[in-house]
Amino acid sequence: MTSRPSSSDIPRGFSFSATACGLKKSGLDLALLASDGPATAAALFTQNRVQAAPVLASQSHLRKSRGKMRGIIVNSGNANCCTGPDGYAASAATALKVARELDRLDPSQILVCSTGVIGVPLRIEKILHAVPKLVHDLSANALAFAQFTRAIMTTDTRSKWAGAKCRIGGRPVRLLGCCKGAGMIQPNLATMLAFLATDAAISSVLLTRALRRAVASTFNAITVDGDTSTNDTVAILANGRSGARKVTTAGPGFAQFTAALEKVCRQLALAIVADGEGAQRVIEIEVRGAPSSRAADLIARTIANSPLVKTALAGADPNWGRILAAAGRAGVPFDFERVDIRLAGVRVCRRGRECRFNERVAHKKMLAKFVPIVVDLHSGSSSARIWTCDFTGDYVTINASYRT
Amino acid sequence: MTSRPSSSDIPRGFSFSATACGLKKSGLDLALLASDGPATAAALFTQNRVQAAPVLASQSHLRKSRGKMRGIIVNSGNANCCTGPDGYAASAATALKVARELDRLDPSQILVCSTGVIGVPLRIEKILHAVPKLVHDLSANALAFAQFTRAIMTTDTRSKWAGAKCRIGGRPVRLLGCCKGAGMIQPNLATMLAFLATDAAISSVLLTRALRRAVASTFNAITVDGDTSTNDTVAILANGRSGARKVTTAGPGFAQFTAALEKVCRQLALAIVADGEGAQRVIEIEVRGAPSSRAADLIARTIANSPLVKTALAGADPNWGRILAAAGRAGVPFDFERVDIRLAGVRVCRRGRECRFNERVAHKKMLAKFVPIVVDLHSGSSSARIWTCDFTGDYVTINASYRT
Repeated sequence: MTSRPSSSDIPRGFSFSATACGLKKSGLDLALLASDGPATAAALFTQNRVQAAPVLASQSHLRKSRGKMRGIIVNSGNANCCTGPDGYAASAATALKVARELDRLDPSQILVCSTGVIGVPLRIEKILHAVPKLVHDLSANALAFAQFTRAIMTTDTRSKWAGAKCRIGGRPVRLLGCCKGAGMIQPNLATMLAFLATDAAISSVLLTRALRRAVASTFNAITVDGDTSTNDTVAILANGRSGARKVTTAGPGFAQFTAALEKVCRQLALAIVADGEGAQRVIEIEVRGAPSSRAADLIARTIANSPLVKTALAGADPNWGRILAAAGRAGVPFDFERVDIRLAGVRVCRRGRECRFNERVAHKKMLAKFVPIVVDLHSGSSSARIWTCDFTGDYVTINASYRT
Repeated sequence: MTSRPSSSDIPRGFSFSATACGLKKSGLDLALLASDGPATAAALFTQNRVQAAPVLASQSHLRKSRGKMRGIIVNSGNANCCTGPDGYAASAATALKVARELDRLDPSQILVCSTGVIGVPLRIEKILHAVPKLVHDLSANALAFAQFTRAIMTTDTRSKWAGAKCRIGGRPVRLLGCCKGAGMIQPNLATMLAFLATDAAISSVLLTRALRRAVASTFNAITVDGDTSTNDTVAILANGRSGARKVTTAGPGFAQFTAALEKVCRQLALAIVADGEGAQRVIEIEVRGAPSSRAADLIARTIANSPLVKTALAGADPNWGRILAAAGRAGVPFDFERVDIRLAGVRVCRRGRECRFNERVAHKKMLAKFVPIVVDLHSGSSSARIWTCDFTGDYVTINASYRT
């Protein structure tokens, strides 16, 4: 991933802008994505029982506009969550202001997203004041997109984007996405903020199906700390400006599009894990030979969220006993004396027992940026894959004083 | 809790000893508890699917001896878990050796416990070699008990013990317990190693009932890191040597005994949390107004295991939004706009929103050794209480290099 896409990566008919409106102490904190014309939209939101005002506003707008959207406004620095009636009013006012400034649109054509601290009133006047400039600055170039990706960051140390192209009916279609997230990451049917734009033409039903499919194996398969955010949102706009014929059936065009979408989502999801708060390395946990997909997922997730496994990984310690102990508390029946474990390519456990391995070699391999763990239960034919990161002292440092 | 009980705290007819047999690099690592005569026994074990050899051996011994036990041998430094047939043989050989040395007993009258690293073969010859000395050194005094409590430690920074007395039929009865545990703590129907001795006489059925009752609200209500151990064991021996009449019905004597047992278990459980790896403070999480006990427990546990909540507590940051967000992902339906939260006695959230509070005052109160958090859902009449500790950089340091 280079720091910025080239202009040819920008889907036709989309423009971007960003500004510093003062919600953060310094830096970009307000961003806008706009489509020249109505775009088919699909979005998935957090399953947390506590949902932020912008999540509720965006859900309502998607229903009212029947999925025909024109833009997404995002602020960082404040989640606008647990902020009561004022919070709902702020999200509504933001959409209204953007809709008016853009083109006297209906506010329901605008999605609203927020990320930052929970429970602090949003200084809405700062946003409203900045919207005219934001709309004025909209540009369809790569620099504007790069600024958009930076403006949505909180504890992220780097911006995250990914692009892909595919052909539908022989014509090229572009797909571009970006996301933010480093902590409070264990998405549940949705994820942290991720925005995707494409100039493909596709029906609303198929766009939603493609997004659900892509998210299941990407954003929903990552975890940094097991905490699900109150503001998770993944949204995609498809404006049809590529000129390629509209995807209306689940044929080859749909397959091409879905594959490209999944590729972009996977790159973005892995970028979140790689930038996990304090993370040194990405860990891929694959559970095989499970009695069911649900069992495999539960075990993989329990291993991925075990503080003892994650701290051992921070120390590149091939402490496979902790991996097996975490699997054992996942609530899934299995015979641990059939389990094999490979750590960074080294077989460390066979049939639930240590097998001779070179500790020094294993340690050295575990110092890599990407460490695969394969746990084979030999108790069935289902599998699951979850990505996480190691757990370092920096995670604690970042989060012990997040608000101060 | 002073560093050592007085001799009058030692239940009649029990003796203790400890030695350094060489499983740890240095320090005491083998301990023995013995009753002069057969003692009624009850024990609870880990619910992890991965269970260590000594857990299986002890369960089998309890069944075979019909709950009439003579002693407990404990080694630290190696969990004897995931060690295959050799591991089972080692636990059996340990019990056999202790049984013979003590009094040509049946090995099923001995409970065997281990704690330490998982997956490394146990050097059984070191234990067998040390047993004669261990038996020879058995003493009924407070110093011997204190050494027992130290010999069972792993990452614990201090030994943990608690005692209580009660009267049964007018006669005094003594109860004394100790435990170890600092990491891999989220007991499930059992806990880390905890040993209780009493000179009360009580039927096997009632002893088990009393133990289950006491553990539910004490050892099973604590968590350090959400990880359940493969070796958790709580065992109690009751040898009747006080001379008090035997408790055979659930009358006043049983009530007295259960209250004393629960008091001891609570002190021990809180001592584990206070000594949690890297912990600065104990956090009590009370969920009130829940639709069911299970819902209250799930929410309290999810808050207690949230890395974001625990790191905020390490920084004494009154970041209540994280508490509410953790509650929201517990999988329990509730209306977050009815929730009140008190943090260290300060009301920080009312009806799901921030209420004005003095940040400086709240921060200062949160620097205490004991911080209560009360979350009232206002959605029912059930409640639950869970104890945990904060999550500091030291937890990571301790666990990134546990085996090296």
